[in-house]
Amino acid sequence: MIEITDIKVRVFRHKTRKHKDSAGHSHPGPLRDTTQAMITISASDGTQGHAFGAAEAMRPHVIENYVKTVYLRQNPFDRERLWHELAHWQRGSADQLTDRTLALADMALHDLIGRHLDMPVHKLLGGVRDRIPAYASTMCGDELEGGLATPEDYARYAEWLVQRGYKAIKLHTWMPPVSWAPNVKADLKACAAVREAVGPDMPLMLDAFHWYDRLSALELGRGLEKLGYYWFEEPMDEQSMSSYRWLASQLDIPVIGPESAGGKYFNRAEWIVSRACDVMRTGVIDVGGIGAAIKTASLAEAFGINCEVHSPGAGSLAVLGAIKNTTWYERGLLHPFIDYDEPPEYLNAIVDPLDDDGMVPLPCGPGLGEDINFDYIDDNLVSTQ
Amino acid sequence: MIEITDIKVRVFRHKTRKHKDSAGHSHPGPLRDTTQAMITISASDGTQGHAFGAAEAMRPHVIENYVKTVYLRQNPFDRERLWHELAHWQRGSADQLTDRTLALADMALHDLIGRHLDMPVHKLLGGVRDRIPAYASTMCGDELEGGLATPEDYARYAEWLVQRGYKAIKLHTWMPPVSWAPNVKADLKACAAVREAVGPDMPLMLDAFHWYDRLSALELGRGLEKLGYYWFEEPMDEQSMSSYRWLASQLDIPVIGPESAGGKYFNRAEWIVSRACDVMRTGVIDVGGIGAAIKTASLAEAFGINCEVHSPGAGSLAVLGAIKNTTWYERGLLHPFIDYDEPPEYLNAIVDPLDDDGMVPLPCGPGLGEDINFDYIDDNLVSTQ
Repeated sequence: MIEITDIKVRVFRHKTRKHKDSAGHSHPGPLRDTTQAMITISASDGTQGHAFGAAEAMRPHVIENYVKTVYLRQNPFDRERLWHELAHWQRGSADQLTDRTLALADMALHDLIGRHLDMPVHKLLGGVRDRIPAYASTMCGDELEGGLATPEDYARYAEWLVQRGYKAIKLHTWMPPVSWAPNVKADLKACAAVREAVGPDMPLMLDAFHWYDRLSALELGRGLEKLGYYWFEEPMDEQSMSSYRWLASQLDIPVIGPESAGGKYFNRAEWIVSRACDVMRTGVIDVGGIGAAIKTASLAEAFGINCEVHSPGAGSLAVLGAIKNTTWYERGLLHPFIDYDEPPEYLNAIVDPLDDDGMVPLPCGPGLGEDINFDYIDDNLVSTQ
Repeated sequence: MIEITDIKVRVFRHKTRKHKDSAGHSHPGPLRDTTQAMITISASDGTQGHAFGAAEAMRPHVIENYVKTVYLRQNPFDRERLWHELAHWQRGSADQLTDRTLALADMALHDLIGRHLDMPVHKLLGGVRDRIPAYASTMCGDELEGGLATPEDYARYAEWLVQRGYKAIKLHTWMPPVSWAPNVKADLKACAAVREAVGPDMPLMLDAFHWYDRLSALELGRGLEKLGYYWFEEPMDEQSMSSYRWLASQLDIPVIGPESAGGKYFNRAEWIVSRACDVMRTGVIDVGGIGAAIKTASLAEAFGINCEVHSPGAGSLAVLGAIKNTTWYERGLLHPFIDYDEPPEYLNAIVDPLDDDGMVPLPCGPGLGEDINFDYIDDNLVSTQ
């Protein structure tokens, strides 16, 4: 049986058009240098597994003190045991060893397993579908001329997204530091303009400002009901489950959550029994990995609840190919000034191309299916650990 | 990608010392002829997967009309999709297409996947442990001289089981057609005799008559509490979840369930939120397969509840090697007159040998890890479909 022999993190430079505003939202801008990190787990037979993420989630002392302590010299096929052992280290160390770090290690481990067996991870974990409908997930509103600055901008972009082949659209609307945001009326104007642009039948979702108070969230939800919206996502702080129970009990529009709330699948079990959501939300990065995301989906399935997966990427596709009770792939974030289909320099191809039916084929390659440009990464190293 | 090309069921003769009484319980007796069935799923690359079960669960028209309809020409790695598609056929046909049939097809499919990848199934599905503590699970009480006819018989056998290496024992006590059964006082006498024989520290469980009324079950549970028993299993009809909620709310001893109740993991979710059990029970055969049993465990894990797996065998071991929130392997059913360690003629070795520490090593072979004597099966065929 093979064993894990090394774990390495490579931080490398690449260029991006995404710029973060003062509240952390991405918006388009001129090409700039940024960094990305790749964690690589190596096994004794030479197989390697990789996952990409922010360097902040793979800081040297976190990899050294926690991930290597648990993973090295272990059988990579003991992925469930290794996940629990690493998660146990979070007690007292959760400020350093975050669910995001857990997720990146778990993704790289799954990639290693798939590559070792020459199998796509989703086929090892379930095998439910070969492609999945995508919804276009927009960037947050901005104040850029011709960007996403007005309801008309959203409407025009929605028309383009329909032409591009998308069968559903999710808006992220205006949030601070946009000077006049948040604003329920403005959110509803954008939602109304998009509904008008795409007609009555297309599923539309809203993911607005995440810290509205209860009454604002209710007003926003009531407005979305009139516009025939499909789901209503994270309008309030998810740390207050009671607020979501309050909201969901009054609205007809399905409330989806939680996404950013901690507590992995344990907390999501409480949301179900508290009826704080109508649709379950999980995410590989949010709940600590591929295995934990699938557990969330199993939990939801046992209660007859669908589970929608947050954020695009190879990890999400591995989950979506393995669970039945899900509907959509979140493709984005999208913006009129960004070409989502252009691969970043460190990939030879994007993992989630859109087909002519508005669907994303699940990757057929081994592991998580990313086509990595290792030469680019080695040529642009900032640091290696 | 490979596809499923054939599904075959072989019914064959073998000899057994187990005799069923008029209520369906097994007891020892002279060697007799019986039949067993093996379902075999073949793939286009020549790989085959197998599972053993009662011929009644693999009747020709069930295999033909349901299993073949769903499985043939499909990618065996789409196991989650195939499971759901087959389960959908149960609507209106559950009298023919039982959860047991679902389970046998799912087990053979997992065996095929493991054999194709040359990997043990439990390592593909999780990878948590390499061995697991076994509890000795006795046959039901009887009226055989020197068998399990008196409390003293149970005590003497418990002493032997301790010498044999077991670290825990579960009694099945007397049930009809034993003339004077069920009898709460007799159950408690056997439980007391075993406690006396093994000392205060060994975990002991009781699985008694399954149709006691509420008051009898409560009396029995209160008696077990005084004897320091570890869990109390299925003393009432599991179709009444309310009865279990009533019982569990009053007892300190953990109530485990449900085992025989239908409804797969969906029903088990209701037991959790209704607090009808303290420990979750699942079983590959009971909930429709390996995948469904693992989903039950994930569900329970999200609520901080352990999930113990019903019955021995290769399918149970695949689950136990993949889930963390479990403790025991049920080894049995055992009886002083039966040599559990002697493999049946259709296996070259038993799948669950007991090691010197009272533990069962998880199989290392590919698939479910059974070492099948194909020649024996072919030489003793009763029918093939």
